[in-house]
This record gives sequence, C-alpha cells and structure tokens, in this order.
Amino acid sequence: MERSVFFISDGTGITAESFGQSLLAQFSGPTFCHHTLPYIDTREKAVKALMQITEAHQAEKVQPIIFMTVLNEEVSQLMHTSGAYIIDLFSTFLPGLEIELESHPLYTVGKKRSTTSSDSYHRRIEAVQFALDNDDGARFRHYEKADIILLGASRSGKTPTCIYLGLQFGIFAANYPITEDDLDKGTKLPDVLKPHKERLFGLTINPVRLAGIRNERRPNSRYSSARQCQYEVHAVEQIYRQEQISYIDTTEFSVEEIATRIMDQANLVRRLK
Amino acid sequence: MERSVFFISDGTGITAESFGQSLLAQFSGPTFCHHTLPYIDTREKAVKALMQITEAHQAEKVQPIIFMTVLNEEVSQLMHTSGAYIIDLFSTFLPGLEIELESHPLYTVGKKRSTTSSDSYHRRIEAVQFALDNDDGARFRHYEKADIILLGASRSGKTPTCIYLGLQFGIFAANYPITEDDLDKGTKLPDVLKPHKERLFGLTINPVRLAGIRNERRPNSRYSSARQCQYEVHAVEQIYRQEQISYIDTTEFSVEEIATRIMDQANLVRRLK
Repeated sequence: MERSVFFISDGTGITAESFGQSLLAQFSGPTFCHHTLPYIDTREKAVKALMQITEAHQAEKVQPIIFMTVLNEEVSQLMHTSGAYIIDLFSTFLPGLEIELESHPLYTVGKKRSTTSSDSYHRRIEAVQFALDNDDGARFRHYEKADIILLGASRSGKTPTCIYLGLQFGIFAANYPITEDDLDKGTKLPDVLKPHKERLFGLTINPVRLAGIRNERRPNSRYSSARQCQYEVHAVEQIYRQEQISYIDTTEFSVEEIATRIMDQANLVRRLK
Repeated sequence: MERSVFFISDGTGITAESFGQSLLAQFSGPTFCHHTLPYIDTREKAVKALMQITEAHQAEKVQPIIFMTVLNEEVSQLMHTSGAYIIDLFSTFLPGLEIELESHPLYTVGKKRSTTSSDSYHRRIEAVQFALDNDDGARFRHYEKADIILLGASRSGKTPTCIYLGLQFGIFAANYPITEDDLDKGTKLPDVLKPHKERLFGLTINPVRLAGIRNERRPNSRYSSARQCQYEVHAVEQIYRQEQISYIDTTEFSVEEIATRIMDQANLVRRLK
C-alpha cells in the first residue's frame, strides 16, 4: 500500500524535496509515492495540483502528505484546503523569524542570494569548467590553481565529486586517477603530484563495489576483475598511508556526502558567498 | 552590523543550509554571516560548535540564528543550551509525522533513500558520465539514448545544466552548441539534430550577459564582442521559433532553476527513485 507525498513549491521545489526526503527516510514502514510539483505560482496551477492531490487521496484512501515551500499567499491558502497532512515550511518559521529580525519578509519567490548573484554564477560555472578541464589527469599545468586534487583508482567517484564541489561550493577541484601504469613504477606517489602534496586528498572504495561499477562499463574485463580491483585499491591506500594523505572511503556515501566530508576534513573554505 | 547564522547538522548540512538560505533571503535588512557546521555527531563536536556560537554571540551582541537538522539527541539538546534563536527542522515536524504515520522514526543519520541506494548511485554516475561524453556537440551517436538535448550559443549555460540534470534527476542530457559555422549555413536547424527534434530544448541568454561571460574566457575577442553575441543569440532564438522548439532564458536563473524549469516544461520524468 502506497501513500502519496507531494513536494510543492512556487520555486524549484528542491528544498521541500530534500527536506521531505530526509524526514520520510526516518520511517521504515510505509512506502511513499513521490510527486514533485515545482513552480506552482498561479491560481490555475494550484487548482491543477489540488486535483492531483484529491485523486491520490481517493485512490489510496489515506491522506496524502504535503511538504511545501510556498510564498504565494493564494497558492498557500489553496493548498491548506486540500485535506492533506501538511508540513508547511515557510509559514511555520517565517512569522517567528519576522519578530526576531524585526524586519518584514519580502515574500518574493526564488530569492536565494548565494546561487543567483552574478559573482556566484561566474564562480560556479568557472569551477565546473575547471573540474571538466582537469578531469582524469587530463593535464597538470593548472594544478597550481586547484583548491584540491582528488586521487583514486579509476571509477572510485572522483569526477562527480569534483563537479559537485564546483557546483555547490565554487571549489576548484582537479582529479588524478592512479592507474596501473603509475603502480607499475612502484607503490609510490606519481612524480607529477609531488609538488602539490598539501592539496592532495584520496578516495578509496570497497574493491567488490568497485568491481561492480567497473563491470557496468567494461563487463568481464581484466579491468573489472575482483583481483585487479583488490590490487589497485590496496596499492592506492598504501600510498595514502605512506604519504600521509587524508582519504575517505566512498563506498557507502552519496556524491553529496563525499563532497561535504571532503570540505570538512580538508578544511576547505567555500568560495560562494 | 553582521549577524551570525549557523547551519548545523549531524549529516551533510545541505538541507539546513538550503532551507535557511531560502528563508533568510526573504529579509532584505540584516547582513548575515554564514557558518555551516556539518557532521556534528558527537558530544565533542557539539561542544566545539557551542563555543563558536557563544563567541559570535559575544562579538556581535545579538543572538545568533541556528538552522538545525540534527537527529542525535545529545547534540540536539546541547544546541538548545546555546542561547541562539533556533529553527529546529527535525524536532518541529518529526513528532507530528510520527503520529500521522503511526510509525517510529529511526533516528538514523544520513538516511536518504534516493541518493544512496546502489541503483540510484549507478544511475547518477552514468548520467553525469553521459553529460560529459556528450558535451559540447562532441559526438552525436548517443543522441538516441538522450532524454533531452540542450541547444544554445556557446556559454549560454548548457554544460552545467546537463550535469545538474544528471546528478539531481538521473536524466541523460546531451548538448549541442549552435556555432557560427552552423549559422553560416543559414538560420536553420543543423542537419544532425533533425532526427531528434522531439528531444531538443533551447537555452537563450541576454546578449549583454553573454558578452560578459565570454569576456571572462576570451577578453576583447570577436567571440566576446557585443555585436557577435547579439547576432548569435538573435539567430538561435529565430531557429527555436521557426522549429517550434521550447526554450528558456537563463539570464536570471541559477543552474538549479534552469534545470528544474526544463524538467517541468519538457515534462521529463526523473530517473532516480
């Protein structure tokens, strides 16, 4: 038996969704069916959303749950007539904050200074571009400009982490894959990385998980064999320990968790205001 | 006069931060000084955080504000002794939800089904890889597999949007830059895109803004001149209208907004559970 959950916003819906998912993940019992309805910023769209909510209610014979971040007052009021169980993030906290700050809310949708200001926009785009240009050991000549250089065996999560660090925090992140060619020269730090030691950060991963990921890309190859994955992971971790390079195990983590843990452990300062 | 705001979490802190920023952006008056403290999951870390909060309080002579998503009960209680103005996202809503769902919360940190399950992890990584492999018109042979193909003049925001669509929604997004070479052949859809018309989506941008962005990359070039940017944007928009391709103006939007609006307008179904 499923229970419908609606994430409703007159903006992107990202906050409602991310908060709602965290909260619902605390309950192991029911199975939820997610619906994200962003940009509900007119009466017409709100009425259409209401119909969808009512349909779910009738089909499932249980109140749907709404997580909402809605500033538009008309939309907000309409949602409160839905008969759903509502978690209303803005109305719960805005009035208290208004008193505390002795200032009136603007009630303007889509205001989020950090991501829309022109400076931040540039920095984010530059940082993503930096991650792409300096992905996979493609070149080293910009390592001087990097805030951090991620190391790891092929497919241990370096690329998406670098991109996320750029997008979310404006961090310039390069990455260097430690390959078999490197390891053939001995279990030691590749020469090209030596001048940048203080900026290195390692990723490691459970070899079985790594084999699974590699198998999706090159099935039944030497590259994706259990033995090869075990060898590479083992060698890479040995280098980290030898050289006292901080590292984390990405096996159980999402990209967001890997990136925020690196920010934390490497004491990186975010570059977006 | 600044007022400190702390985003405190025993997880990544992303939810506390994103919600707190949305809420604070509604107040134009005060200037806030942001501190994100993620992974506060032990008594020791909580005590250290408390010291930082107390210092800010004393220096600024005004209560700091805390947005918190903390499941660890000891940490949560300690934060409530801080003397700050607290917006406690979990304790505000968990008890009500517990009654509504007739189920006990797990109180386990870092549970967020959508981003950590192995299937979703694979899909996200594959989608980011797809965006990278099919970036900037690099190749067309995978266009069949694309959920969407973004068009636009160079530097109108295609790459970060494609990556974000992959990371956030598991969408396979390719992109094709409409270049001067294309436009020299006439103001029409490049041949290579014709078989994929139903999957095309256009980006456009204010030419002045575009010139600013291009100038950061190649200062004082023909490529970044006002005249060239105006010409390209104008021609690209004409193609969209001629071919009835949906498009959006990215000038005032963050990457998140561009991506979520495309999801909405193109009726894309997210690929992450």
